[in-house]
Amino acid sequence: MHTAGQDTTALLALDWGTTALRGARLDAHGTVLEQRAFPRGILSVPAGGFTAAFEECFGDWARGSARACLISGMAGSKQGWIEAPYCACPSGFADVAARLRWISDPALTLPTAIVPGLCCELPCDLPQLASVPDVMRGEEVQIFGAMHLTGRNDGLFILPGTHSKWAWVQDGRVTAFQTFMTGEFFALLSQHSLLARTIDTTAAFDAQAFALGVARAGQGASLLHNAFGARTLSLMSRMAAGPLASFLSGLVIGDELRGHGRNASGDIALIGSDNLTRRYALAFESLGVTTRSMGGEATWAGLHALGQHLPDERSP
Amino acid sequence: MHTAGQDTTALLALDWGTTALRGARLDAHGTVLEQRAFPRGILSVPAGGFTAAFEECFGDWARGSARACLISGMAGSKQGWIEAPYCACPSGFADVAARLRWISDPALTLPTAIVPGLCCELPCDLPQLASVPDVMRGEEVQIFGAMHLTGRNDGLFILPGTHSKWAWVQDGRVTAFQTFMTGEFFALLSQHSLLARTIDTTAAFDAQAFALGVARAGQGASLLHNAFGARTLSLMSRMAAGPLASFLSGLVIGDELRGHGRNASGDIALIGSDNLTRRYALAFESLGVTTRSMGGEATWAGLHALGQHLPDERSP
Repeated sequence: MHTAGQDTTALLALDWGTTALRGARLDAHGTVLEQRAFPRGILSVPAGGFTAAFEECFGDWARGSARACLISGMAGSKQGWIEAPYCACPSGFADVAARLRWISDPALTLPTAIVPGLCCELPCDLPQLASVPDVMRGEEVQIFGAMHLTGRNDGLFILPGTHSKWAWVQDGRVTAFQTFMTGEFFALLSQHSLLARTIDTTAAFDAQAFALGVARAGQGASLLHNAFGARTLSLMSRMAAGPLASFLSGLVIGDELRGHGRNASGDIALIGSDNLTRRYALAFESLGVTTRSMGGEATWAGLHALGQHLPDERSP
Repeated sequence: MHTAGQDTTALLALDWGTTALRGARLDAHGTVLEQRAFPRGILSVPAGGFTAAFEECFGDWARGSARACLISGMAGSKQGWIEAPYCACPSGFADVAARLRWISDPALTLPTAIVPGLCCELPCDLPQLASVPDVMRGEEVQIFGAMHLTGRNDGLFILPGTHSKWAWVQDGRVTAFQTFMTGEFFALLSQHSLLARTIDTTAAFDAQAFALGVARAGQGASLLHNAFGARTLSLMSRMAAGPLASFLSGLVIGDELRGHGRNASGDIALIGSDNLTRRYALAFESLGVTTRSMGGEATWAGLHALGQHLPDERSP
């Protein structure tokens, strides 16, 4: 436990997602002093219940020496605490910093703001559909954090996950991005489809079976067909239940890479869990594309960087 | 109710699938005299319980004038009544007719056989995976029935469904075929994914939204991305919940067509429910490919044709 006298906290940083709530106390240099995680994603919080949930999880921190609290993620969606309208691409650090949505609630002891997500329009070029929108909430902070940590302000940033994001960055601004439901498709196929009966998702990662799946996907057939191939390989006893999980993972991630992966030039930034960035790094390696990976620290680095640029009236 | 004196039944034809059991009494010309359907697919029948389930559903028919009973579908799988090993492609009517698996069970009053399915090896050309197997059970009978009904022994036969089958036929033999988990992906996405919240699968079919989905899929992006686009179009209030269901259906079916659809030459045979063949006909029409559709009658026609070629010792 910290006491007010020893407290060097400068910022409370929160990542409030759909299913999880994570928070960190950061000092003036962005160093993480303490972290907490709760299964209190926005889907578990009743309408009007966000202030109470915040107080319950982080109330003691909010009465410390932090001068503000910044929150990224789905807390800024329609179903969240307060809606923070998306910043349209191209958007960079300064655009997002200028559009923080401050929460007016007398019950809050600390200036608290939600970081807006990004939106973009991807050209579709059909008579009835000129473009299709894409959106992110939370990943923009990780991208800014990754830029901050690496000093790199250009290139392709990929954030694997339930909904994988590919973001193209130029001069520190996200010019466009694209979402793939890769993690969700894997979960649907391995838990709810015909494949669920013959796959062992608890088996250790099998790099060889994974690479085979990536190569198979790269041949261009639809995932609709390749997924059935995973079933028949099992049915014909040519692949066991353990490797099958890694093979399917390779098929799905390989399908994500099919569109852009082969054209991507080197040194892609991968941001996510070790388990996922490792798989994407392997998949890109098989295409001759280099990557470098970082984890959750990007979120805290991004929120810290935003905290450095708060308007004066929010400074204590 | 029929009586023995009036009974002109020549063959009992059954289609015993994973979730459904359908049967028909056919006369010597293949005319359907009566049909029955039960929610008694093989998954609902306990091991060792197939004879009893057959007796319960069709025992009265079996004591009539039919000279045999032929059963197609998953009843011939490992989890079915008795395993009928696949016929390897290329395989035609005569190959399948010669490999009927007769059931030896003294409790059966009628010679009863299971029709074997087909298997094929699709070249994969990877060092560790020279080919990937594909399988069908039941669709081969529909294909033979469609040949019988149309007099056509060459070309592409497509059977839309939970697991869509594309079968290439030459001189009356299936040379190769390919499965797509199209119906299952649509069900997973519309019932279990993020999209489930904003889609109305009970809405009437919207041909315009469907065509838009097909066109969108034809642009080549992965379904992993296009499915998220269905979500964002809804999120941004650019597409309502009803048309969204037809749009997603178009995205998924369009993805199935992406590989071969554009190279398919005219007059594809579509075999399936009206609801599905209509959608595939529209999708192919948008690619300038002509189709002709037929329904469940293909199953009975196929089993009737096999019944005409039973070995003499099975004739009463």
